[in-house]
Amino acid sequence: MNTPTNRFLRACQRLPVDHTPVWFMRQAGRSLPEFRAIRQRHSFFEVANTPELCVEVTLQPVRRLGVDAAILFSDIMAPLVAVGVDVTLVEGVGPTLARPLRTRDDLAALRPLDPDSDMLPVCETLGMLRAELAASDTALIGFVGAPFTLAGYLVEGKPSRDFIQTKRMMFDAPDLWDDLMRRLTEIVVSFARGQIAAGAQAIQVFDSWIGALGPREYARYVQPHMRRLFDGLRAPGLPEVPRIHFGTGTAALLELMAEAGGEVIGLDWRVNLDEAWARLGGPERVAIQGNLDPVTLDASWETIQREAEIILRQANGQPGHIFNLGHGVLPSADPDNLARLVRFVHDFRVE
Amino acid sequence: MNTPTNRFLRACQRLPVDHTPVWFMRQAGRSLPEFRAIRQRHSFFEVANTPELCVEVTLQPVRRLGVDAAILFSDIMAPLVAVGVDVTLVEGVGPTLARPLRTRDDLAALRPLDPDSDMLPVCETLGMLRAELAASDTALIGFVGAPFTLAGYLVEGKPSRDFIQTKRMMFDAPDLWDDLMRRLTEIVVSFARGQIAAGAQAIQVFDSWIGALGPREYARYVQPHMRRLFDGLRAPGLPEVPRIHFGTGTAALLELMAEAGGEVIGLDWRVNLDEAWARLGGPERVAIQGNLDPVTLDASWETIQREAEIILRQANGQPGHIFNLGHGVLPSADPDNLARLVRFVHDFRVE
Repeated sequence: MNTPTNRFLRACQRLPVDHTPVWFMRQAGRSLPEFRAIRQRHSFFEVANTPELCVEVTLQPVRRLGVDAAILFSDIMAPLVAVGVDVTLVEGVGPTLARPLRTRDDLAALRPLDPDSDMLPVCETLGMLRAELAASDTALIGFVGAPFTLAGYLVEGKPSRDFIQTKRMMFDAPDLWDDLMRRLTEIVVSFARGQIAAGAQAIQVFDSWIGALGPREYARYVQPHMRRLFDGLRAPGLPEVPRIHFGTGTAALLELMAEAGGEVIGLDWRVNLDEAWARLGGPERVAIQGNLDPVTLDASWETIQREAEIILRQANGQPGHIFNLGHGVLPSADPDNLARLVRFVHDFRVE
Repeated sequence: MNTPTNRFLRACQRLPVDHTPVWFMRQAGRSLPEFRAIRQRHSFFEVANTPELCVEVTLQPVRRLGVDAAILFSDIMAPLVAVGVDVTLVEGVGPTLARPLRTRDDLAALRPLDPDSDMLPVCETLGMLRAELAASDTALIGFVGAPFTLAGYLVEGKPSRDFIQTKRMMFDAPDLWDDLMRRLTEIVVSFARGQIAAGAQAIQVFDSWIGALGPREYARYVQPHMRRLFDGLRAPGLPEVPRIHFGTGTAALLELMAEAGGEVIGLDWRVNLDEAWARLGGPERVAIQGNLDPVTLDASWETIQREAEIILRQANGQPGHIFNLGHGVLPSADPDNLARLVRFVHDFRVE
């Protein structure tokens, strides 16, 4: 990797920084009035697939909050939408499929993603974003969902708490499961490579619902595919960008996730950052991202500041900490608190 | 504590047993056709508050499955219903309140539980159950929800994923939060003592949603109350029964939970039983209950047997393991698989 000047990219490589970089998962979204104004006129996937709109909403939090990185406005399901899976984002529910994937015939109908034709708006968006961001010192992060989380939506047909159908396939039809995970991994790798080739300077892999699994299940049914995914993000001719590996409910999975890959491990708020980082070998081994409870942003500024300070003290100014939430910004978060938090993180110094 | 003959009660005390005891959270419930038949004619709380019906559904899984313990058929919200909180169990949603608790005035309206008048049906049920079970060698477990999980329902007014209102109270109104937790702890202690006095031979404290918190939040806002709760289950004149402390999503909380109290720690499936037990000091320090993923019961018998065997091998026949699921039986579980699993656990021997 090149030696970057942007402090987010430097932290990904565990290089010294002038102050802790910060961005927020789902920083582009319903907490911002300017985003809600656009969503009143356009559906989610209209925004995601119209480069002018997608550039605009991706940059909104950069302008308003002063974060160190922009992340492509996208959804976990985007690569599946790109290969023609019939997904609707139902308000208050989440991604909902016209037809869940349950059988080998259903799987056969899932086609590969062709980065040259299936993701033109995404590539155009990323090119425009790089041009817009060239004058600033803001990094650009690409966005992909991980195969287990995608499989959960595909097999259940809607958001799930228990993942009954998904786990039943895992347990009782392991060959079908492995084929599904292999296909999804290929799709995700193509989608991620396309983003890197188009200008993404880092890539975050969202395995948002992986915490539904125990470590034994993860090791057997998911980890081999995640290894191939992370390996697939390195290829001749492809810029070598930092890979961020994120999930929630991962307190018992962190070592297995780090083994699978990623220069940066994203933590949710259910672990102490210092303990989790130490378990993974500390700043000598891996960078760490996180991990303020997103609900904190619904509390008073005093609470936000106190909790953020605890996390910054746990990180102790060591190279390789990127401040973020433990999951996405909630729609109820106050953007003024977000902006103030960015300034607080930037101004913070360990005494 | 007395030295019991029942193998579940012996395992709670980490005494040697002839074979591993087993019962299932929510073993009385919608997976059993004989339960569904009763629920067609009676609401949930009608069943819970009518001793004849409650005895019947509590004993159904004992007869059909051959488990080593019966658990009082109840709901986490039962003590709140007993003090007059207006709770409805909405099908497919969960406990829903006519009016969420948000202010100090709301809290003032929450009255203490009087074990002599507010839980007569529960006490009568437990007395009848002890008489019914006297001839068998089946233990009887009492059932209470923990204050955080109760507070979550009370403050949100319905089941929640993010617990925004609850955490906001925790963060921004810590005095109100502490008062609420103190009041709930008193209610839960009264409800549990009443059950012990009426014949419960062990008591399980369900902190089902505690995994929404990180360890820092748990230590500050919950653990002091849980200590007082567990201390409150010991009192002059009250039989000294084993206390089971259970939650889900607790991979980063286990040490803090064990510190708060319990002779038995209940695990969900998101941790390896051997690793979790070792973290807590192993069989020299504490008994352990768990931890088969409930979704496994929707898979084939081969899968169920394989996964159960892994857990039994992790426990390695050491005194103090009670086999259970990692959370409640799902309505879709096949009762024949449950019965077969009980026999498998009983027949299993570590070579």
